[in-house]
Amino acid sequence: MATDVRLKELLPAITERIVGTYEECGAIHHLGHSPLPSYREVVEILGDLREIIYPGYGRRQNLHMGNVAYHVGDLIDSLHDRLTQQIDRAFRHNCRAKELETDFEAKAQDIAVRFLETIPELRRVLSEDAHAAYEGDPAARSLDEIVFCYPGLAAISVYRLAHVLHGLGVPLIPRMMTEYAHGKTGIDIHPGARIGQRLFIDHGTGVVIGETTEIGDGVKIYQGVTLGALSFPRDESTGEVVRGNKRHPTIEHDVVIYANATILGGDTVIGHHSVIGSSAWITRSVVPHTTVTIENPRLRYREGDVRPDDGYAERLNYQI
Amino acid sequence: MATDVRLKELLPAITERIVGTYEECGAIHHLGHSPLPSYREVVEILGDLREIIYPGYGRRQNLHMGNVAYHVGDLIDSLHDRLTQQIDRAFRHNCRAKELETDFEAKAQDIAVRFLETIPELRRVLSEDAHAAYEGDPAARSLDEIVFCYPGLAAISVYRLAHVLHGLGVPLIPRMMTEYAHGKTGIDIHPGARIGQRLFIDHGTGVVIGETTEIGDGVKIYQGVTLGALSFPRDESTGEVVRGNKRHPTIEHDVVIYANATILGGDTVIGHHSVIGSSAWITRSVVPHTTVTIENPRLRYREGDVRPDDGYAERLNYQI
Amino acid sequence: MATDVRLKELLPAITERIVGTYEECGAIHHLGHSPLPSYREVVEILGDLREIIYPGYGRRQNLHMGNVAYHVGDLIDSLHDRLTQQIDRAFRHNCRAKELETDFEAKAQDIAVRFLETIPELRRVLSEDAHAAYEGDPAARSLDEIVFCYPGLAAISVYRLAHVLHGLGVPLIPRMMTEYAHGKTGIDIHPGARIGQRLFIDHGTGVVIGETTEIGDGVKIYQGVTLGALSFPRDESTGEVVRGNKRHPTIEHDVVIYANATILGGDTVIGHHSVIGSSAWITRSVVPHTTVTIENPRLRYREGDVRPDDGYAERLNYQI
Repeated sequence: MATDVRLKELLPAITERIVGTYEECGAIHHLGHSPLPSYREVVEILGDLREIIYPGYGRRQNLHMGNVAYHVGDLIDSLHDRLTQQIDRAFRHNCRAKELETDFEAKAQDIAVRFLETIPELRRVLSEDAHAAYEGDPAARSLDEIVFCYPGLAAISVYRLAHVLHGLGVPLIPRMMTEYAHGKTGIDIHPGARIGQRLFIDHGTGVVIGETTEIGDGVKIYQGVTLGALSFPRDESTGEVVRGNKRHPTIEHDVVIYANATILGGDTVIGHHSVIGSSAWITRSVVPHTTVTIENPRLRYREGDVRPDDGYAERLNYQI
Repeated sequence: MATDVRLKELLPAITERIVGTYEECGAIHHLGHSPLPSYREVVEILGDLREIIYPGYGRRQNLHMGNVAYHVGDLIDSLHDRLTQQIDRAFRHNCRAKELETDFEAKAQDIAVRFLETIPELRRVLSEDAHAAYEGDPAARSLDEIVFCYPGLAAISVYRLAHVLHGLGVPLIPRMMTEYAHGKTGIDIHPGARIGQRLFIDHGTGVVIGETTEIGDGVKIYQGVTLGALSFPRDESTGEVVRGNKRHPTIEHDVVIYANATILGGDTVIGHHSVIGSSAWITRSVVPHTTVTIENPRLRYREGDVRPDDGYAERLNYQI
Repeated sequence: MATDVRLKELLPAITERIVGTYEECGAIHHLGHSPLPSYREVVEILGDLREIIYPGYGRRQNLHMGNVAYHVGDLIDSLHDRLTQQIDRAFRHNCRAKELETDFEAKAQDIAVRFLETIPELRRVLSEDAHAAYEGDPAARSLDEIVFCYPGLAAISVYRLAHVLHGLGVPLIPRMMTEYAHGKTGIDIHPGARIGQRLFIDHGTGVVIGETTEIGDGVKIYQGVTLGALSFPRDESTGEVVRGNKRHPTIEHDVVIYANATILGGDTVIGHHSVIGSSAWITRSVVPHTTVTIENPRLRYREGDVRPDDGYAERLNYQI
């Protein structure tokens, strides 16, 4: 053992110095307050909600109409208790001093129940999202493939759940949910965005849909699409950014937005049935039924030493 | 306890309403059918395959030539049984009524064995992929770094395994595998794509390689590159998208495609030894040995209030 | 049981063939060497470091100033031992024959202690990163939301830890750390990059910050931004890529780089207070206070069969 014991004796002093910073840098610790919502618990809640929304695809197999009611009833009962606890914590953490009298637990329970009540309608909407994916992707072989594999449906499912909680005024938890989905899928949808039915996001990595985006029914979005802000004003007196105003675009129904297109600005409206080509960059509105594509992309072609015996589309040699 | 017991009494009715939707929205549940492949099991199978392909890097440490045969033999035996079960499920789920007589388990076992038999050849091919990464990236310090850290090699490893299963006609499981890799790496390679040897994908987030893409040997691809479809035809009578035809480009051998380039269309062929510059957008073929770059990007430069004492490349101040 | 026992009898031969390749393809196995650092262990070390840097947000709840010192002391003691072991392994793996006499364990312990000693300063710097995110994003509602949810802060936290280890000369482990963060967030920051204070990366998916990038204080970066290499020279005699020279750009202080912009080249300097617009593509330096935007993007608008009764910005119909 080459370990130097004298070096280990430095550790208590390091601990002391670290703990000392908890008093100074108050911003990034959460000590001695009422507990925050637990990220781990929120992720588990999402797992249970997925089990209810897509029964038979997940953890519990061999479900049938004869036993599924017990399985779902059990999950709903547990979700009610855990949602109530997490929502309660989110409210307590967020409250201003004057609200301290509020009965947060009762409020949290009421919201948990109202949230669970939306699941039947959410299932109907998500079923249409799944069908939109199947109809929109020639590579899809079955609806089961969509439910199992498509990151777009996974991200939209979490978004729709988070959006309901966001609409019920729950702080923090909706964002924890959508950022969990963002990490898993690369698709970043703010829970505040308003999105119609039959949304299909294909591939999806790099998609960003900002807080005040509005999207109509039947929209298709490919990987790398940004629906973002052009810039945002600051309060003239405080210098702080103004929060909450419309900063992100409006996409009307039946629009298709191809890969890596960027649409920016709160006043930008993409009229219905428009098609936005791959890599287009748009900061002003377009009327309905418009097709926007990059005009002959200004590329420079420089041809090299092509030898005459090179086949133009020569045989590709696959080993595997 | 502020919890309102009357609210909890609403839960059975919510459960009932949810279960009621399982009869209507048949699309997104899987109840009372033969079990689907298990996503969790497929992920564990991938973990074991990784352990065999890259021994000594993973879970089991202290492997040497004297004990590795036991470790691998054990894994192969277990993989045989679990692959057979999952492939069996994938076939049953996919079958048409008339095929119900098929002995799916025997077929599944046969495929599992044929799949395992390809591993020695797959190791050779993946070893060359690893070397291509080391040779292609000045930031790489060792081959171990490539195997441990490079998302490109991780995604290519899963793709090559999934492509073999796809070639053996296994439904659903290959896509579950590549979407798992997509979630982990941001690299989305369809198991149907045909890819030659020595592929190097660097960084990789946002890369999409579509189902009918063909890629020759020695190709380098950077983050955000899309090899995608331009558009796809619909069946004139049914209106459904036509599935299976060539929609994605062909990349000949020794091509380099830099970050965020987009190459679209089933007729688009990028001739060998071509270089496609960062952010280029290409929808037509280029002959071999062509360099394509964005021509003087049309940028607008607006200079602000430069104060004379501003250093142009002033000292950067790193605190850490 | 339809399983064919004769097929199972093929498995030992498959195992033998696989193990046979471990002797040929030496590159991608690690057998009979001293053990490599463990990826799993490195990830757990990152989890414990996060627990110390952001106390109260993670696994352990109900921490307060009265008990946090015990919690942190415990973690530091354990981290010391595990870091020493992993760093020792990284050095042994990396060593040249002539260095075999070195007392790697003593060296590893010394580095582990020096690393832990930087945590107080790292907390101060990360606290400013968190504030920069809050001040930079109108969608952020609280600092807790930043710490919990923002992938940018998560990736920057891992980068700053990895950068310290990289600066202390530890091989492999810093890259394992940043690639773990890359997988979780889609943000790929090389531990060798030099980054000033108050960095804010928003959304972040697809961001690549290369090994020799230099970034000043107060910089904002959006999703899909690449700070990359233009090309890299090869050694004239060996043909191998030259490793280590400056290949990535320098970003001076207070620069904003919007979504999907690409800045390439080791000689490229973006002067301070510049703004690089979304999707810009830059390979030469710009002086301070410059705004670079895509000039009227060359888009082709084709309007379709607009029916007169179509509302231009018709009511969007949200069901949820």
